[in-house]
Amino acid sequence: MKPKWGMIATWRMAYEGIVEAVQSLERKQYANDCVELAIRHVEDFPFYKSVGYGGLPNEQCEVELDAAFMDGNTLAIGAIGGIMDFKNPVSIARKLSEERYNNFLVGAGAEKYAHHNGFERTNMLTDRAKKWWDKRVKAIHEKGLSPYDGHDTVGMVCLDSMGNMATATSTSGLFMKKKGRVGDSPLSGSGFYVDSDIGGATATGLGEDIMKGCLSYEIVRLLSEGKHPQNAADQALYQLTDKLQRKYGTAGAMSVVCMNPDGEWGVSTNVEFSFVVASHDLEPTIYIANPQNKQTVIEVASEKWLDQYQKRIHQPV
Amino acid sequence: MKPKWGMIATWRMAYEGIVEAVQSLERKQYANDCVELAIRHVEDFPFYKSVGYGGLPNEQCEVELDAAFMDGNTLAIGAIGGIMDFKNPVSIARKLSEERYNNFLVGAGAEKYAHHNGFERTNMLTDRAKKWWDKRVKAIHEKGLSPYDGHDTVGMVCLDSMGNMATATSTSGLFMKKKGRVGDSPLSGSGFYVDSDIGGATATGLGEDIMKGCLSYEIVRLLSEGKHPQNAADQALYQLTDKLQRKYGTAGAMSVVCMNPDGEWGVSTNVEFSFVVASHDLEPTIYIANPQNKQTVIEVASEKWLDQYQKRIHQPV
Repeated sequence: MKPKWGMIATWRMAYEGIVEAVQSLERKQYANDCVELAIRHVEDFPFYKSVGYGGLPNEQCEVELDAAFMDGNTLAIGAIGGIMDFKNPVSIARKLSEERYNNFLVGAGAEKYAHHNGFERTNMLTDRAKKWWDKRVKAIHEKGLSPYDGHDTVGMVCLDSMGNMATATSTSGLFMKKKGRVGDSPLSGSGFYVDSDIGGATATGLGEDIMKGCLSYEIVRLLSEGKHPQNAADQALYQLTDKLQRKYGTAGAMSVVCMNPDGEWGVSTNVEFSFVVASHDLEPTIYIANPQNKQTVIEVASEKWLDQYQKRIHQPV
Repeated sequence: MKPKWGMIATWRMAYEGIVEAVQSLERKQYANDCVELAIRHVEDFPFYKSVGYGGLPNEQCEVELDAAFMDGNTLAIGAIGGIMDFKNPVSIARKLSEERYNNFLVGAGAEKYAHHNGFERTNMLTDRAKKWWDKRVKAIHEKGLSPYDGHDTVGMVCLDSMGNMATATSTSGLFMKKKGRVGDSPLSGSGFYVDSDIGGATATGLGEDIMKGCLSYEIVRLLSEGKHPQNAADQALYQLTDKLQRKYGTAGAMSVVCMNPDGEWGVSTNVEFSFVVASHDLEPTIYIANPQNKQTVIEVASEKWLDQYQKRIHQPV
C-alpha cells in the first residue's frame, strides 16, 4: 500500500508553504519538520497581514505575535504569546516544546528565551502594516468603527508517511487588540490539538469565543469516537456556535480544519473561509467553505476568486 | 425542597475563604461573587506561598501571577498571565470576563488594563517569599537541586442556590519559573471550565502536563454524559496520567476537583492532595485525597495533619 500522508491548513495564505512542505512529505520527512517549514513560509511573507512579518499591530502599533507547536506522538507543547520582533514565532514555539518545564512563555519572558536560544530578531512592523494601522486609527476616530477584525490565524495539521502527526499555529492576533491580548492560537485545546493515534485539529476566528468551547480538543475527542473528520468538525463547531448564541447572546467567527491518521480531513466554519489541503492522492488545493444549514459546503476556489485574492492582498493601502 | 448550593476548592489554603463564602451562599448570593470573594481571601493571606501576596517568585525574583474567572451561565472568561504587583488577580480576571474582546491579557498589557480599571497595586513580594527565593538560589548553586516545585494553584468551583455556577483560579505558578511562564491556571479547559447546565472543574499541579490533556474540559464533558463527578474526575485524571506516561515518558503531579449542578462533587489526584468542600448539607470540611490503584481515597484531614500544616506554613525560612 502506498504510504499515506497529508496536510490541511487554514486560509489561502497557507498555500505556498504547503506546496513547499509537500515536497518534504514526499521525501518521507517528519511531520514536525514539515509543519514548521510551512508555517515559517507564511510568517515570512510580508503581504499576509495577520501572521508574522507584515502582521497587523495592536492598538499601540506594536506587532505582538502568538504561536504554538504540538507533537502528536508525545503531546509535547510549546507556545508563545505577545512576543515582539522575532522572525519566526513558530520555531520558538517548537523549541519550547522540547523543554520539560516553562513551555508557554509570554511577553518579555518569551523574548528573553528567544534571544538566549539564538532566534533571529527582525522589526516585524512593515511600512504597509503601519499604513493599515494609521488608516484604521483615522477611521476609528472619524467613524467610530469597531477596531477588531483581521484575526486570521494560520493553523496546520500534518500527517507524515510514517504516521506521525503535528500541528502548529501562528498569528498576529486581532488587529488593534489591547497590548498583551492572547487569543486561542497558543492555547492547547482551543487553537490546536493533536494526538497521532487519533488526529489533529486547529482553529481560526475570534479566539475569545473559540476558547469558550475548547474547540480543537473537542474535535479530536470526536475523532477518538471514530467519527469522520468532516462530521467531527461540523458537530463541534455548530454546537459551539449554537451554545454561544444561547448562553452568551452572540457567537464570533470561527473556522476549523482537522485530519485523522488515515489522511481523511474535515473543515467547518460559520463564515466564508478558505483553506488548503494536500495529500498522497491530492495536489495542494485551495478550497472555499461556507456554512449552510449547519453543514459546511466546500468547493474548489475559482480562478476568479484566486485572482481577486491576489489583487486584494497587494492593493495599495 | 431545601435549595442546593456548594463549593469545592483545591488545597487546604482555600478553607478560610470558603468559610467566608459559605455565609454569602447561605444568604443566596451569586456564585460569581462568592467564588471571587473566596479566592481573594486566599490571595490576601501572606503565608500561602503559591497564590497572591506572599507567592513565590520566578527565577528573577519577580512574583508573576496568573488567574482566571469563568461564568458558567454565559461561558464568559477572563484571564491574566504573568501580571506583577496587583493585589487581587482574580478580580482583574473577573473584570476581563465582562469584556467582549481581549479577555486574556498577559504581562505589561495586563498591568496596563488593571491600572486603567483602578485595581489596587501592591508589591506582592514579601520578605518571607524573598527568603525562600534566596535559600533556593543557594541550594541550587550548592546542590544542583531541581528548581521547580510549589505549583499549588487555588481553584474553586461554586454552585449557588439559584443554580448558577462559576469557577476561578489564582496562582504564582511554578516557584523559580522562567520569566513569562504561563501555566494551565489561566487556560480555558486546562486549568478550569464550567457550564451551569453541566458542572465545573478546576485543576492544580504541573500546568505543562495538565494542558497536554485539557483536563478540566474533559471532566466537564464526562459530566455532560451523566457521570458522577467522582467517576468523571478519576476517569479523566488517570487516563491522562497513563497516556502521558506512555507517550511522553512521564507525568507530573496533577489534582482536580469538580462539582455538578446538584452539588455532587468529585476529586482525583496522582499525589497526596488536600481540598475543601462545603455545601447545603456539609460544613466546610478539609479532606486529604490519595491515589490508590487508579482510584482516589478520600478521608477527612486529621487534627494531627491540620496541626502540622499550621506549623509548616508558619515555620521560619
